[in-house]
Amino acid sequence: MTITITAFENSPDGGKGMARDMRVRWALEEVGLPYEVRLLSFKALKEPAHLALQPFGQIPTYQEDDLTLFDSGAIVFHIADHHPGLLPQDANARARAITWMFTAVSTMEPPMLEREVARFLEGEKSWHDERMPLIDNRIRRRLGQLSEQFGERQWLEDTFSAGDLLMISVLLRTRTSGILAEFPNLLAYVERGETRPAYKRAFAAQLAVFKAASNL
Amino acid sequence: MTITITAFENSPDGGKGMARDMRVRWALEEVGLPYEVRLLSFKALKEPAHLALQPFGQIPTYQEDDLTLFDSGAIVFHIADHHPGLLPQDANARARAITWMFTAVSTMEPPMLEREVARFLEGEKSWHDERMPLIDNRIRRRLGQLSEQFGERQWLEDTFSAGDLLMISVLLRTRTSGILAEFPNLLAYVERGETRPAYKRAFAAQLAVFKAASNL
Repeated sequence: MTITITAFENSPDGGKGMARDMRVRWALEEVGLPYEVRLLSFKALKEPAHLALQPFGQIPTYQEDDLTLFDSGAIVFHIADHHPGLLPQDANARARAITWMFTAVSTMEPPMLEREVARFLEGEKSWHDERMPLIDNRIRRRLGQLSEQFGERQWLEDTFSAGDLLMISVLLRTRTSGILAEFPNLLAYVERGETRPAYKRAFAAQLAVFKAASNL
Repeated sequence: MTITITAFENSPDGGKGMARDMRVRWALEEVGLPYEVRLLSFKALKEPAHLALQPFGQIPTYQEDDLTLFDSGAIVFHIADHHPGLLPQDANARARAITWMFTAVSTMEPPMLEREVARFLEGEKSWHDERMPLIDNRIRRRLGQLSEQFGERQWLEDTFSAGDLLMISVLLRTRTSGILAEFPNLLAYVERGETRPAYKRAFAAQLAVFKAASNL
């Protein structure tokens, strides 16, 4: 079985691990699967060859023999569903871990994405400065609800799962804004994820791509 | 096995099937599982008893013996994962159907939710009228990409799946805005979903709750 994923040739985040190939790399490292990476320029993302694999012109895609998938949440689920280590054996615990996967990308991430849209697409608009605090409060509200539920746990369920992998990947987006630090238990949770050897290997691999592209 | 879901006592959509219990009702009807509904007031949603089940104070939740889940995408997946009819048997087709589930709630739905946030939370703001067309264009872009990929198919994959169930539920949100009608293949797809007997039963059940609450 050969696994090939796609990633940015030159990641807009400067190799800080925010691009969504990071989530897939991390999952592959957790279960110990080797993979190849096909790098794409921004131009190539919008071309028919890529749109046939990814209708929204994004990265990552995932190819494994005759299967092609897109959507980082779905790819992480696929890896977790087929290889031990990322989903609990117990049926109920497994269902709860999958719940956190959906929650990470559909409840927690949308206001964070909205913050990026506001910066990049509405940064010059007259309302930008007045509206940003409203978005920050939407993010803060979600983080507060999660923080309350999370308490002093180590992971969302008893053991590290694909739910944590996606949740930590999503929460990471809010660190540079300073909002994550308002919730010390969530900041510690994110840092706990970052200390995992699989995370570190994935981070180093995506950073190496950026450095090579930038001749750093 | 007794299944109990939660739903709005008085749905803000007026029983038009937009509340997220509709997705879970539809999935349960597709696989032929009976269920009970516990109705919640807006006040009850924010109380500790409910927040212990649903950290974000939303509906629906799903209780099945000693398992409690939240997040409509995750609940639909759980139902599909344990009962035949909503996910293909073939492993690759199953992985693709799950991809569409994630895509529906994490790629397609966020700009639609943003439109609702803009209306309800920023409706009085000075920028509201100028900003709405920008949001509509974000929705239009996603619908256009999906429409292009979808072409003249009946369903996202060869047979109806939980991917269609979530995608149609999400696309429905854009119908009243008129944007969905700009993509006739997607409008026809949504209408195809609505003709399914399971959809009709689920819709009737949630409408009956609204009518009873409103003494209609």
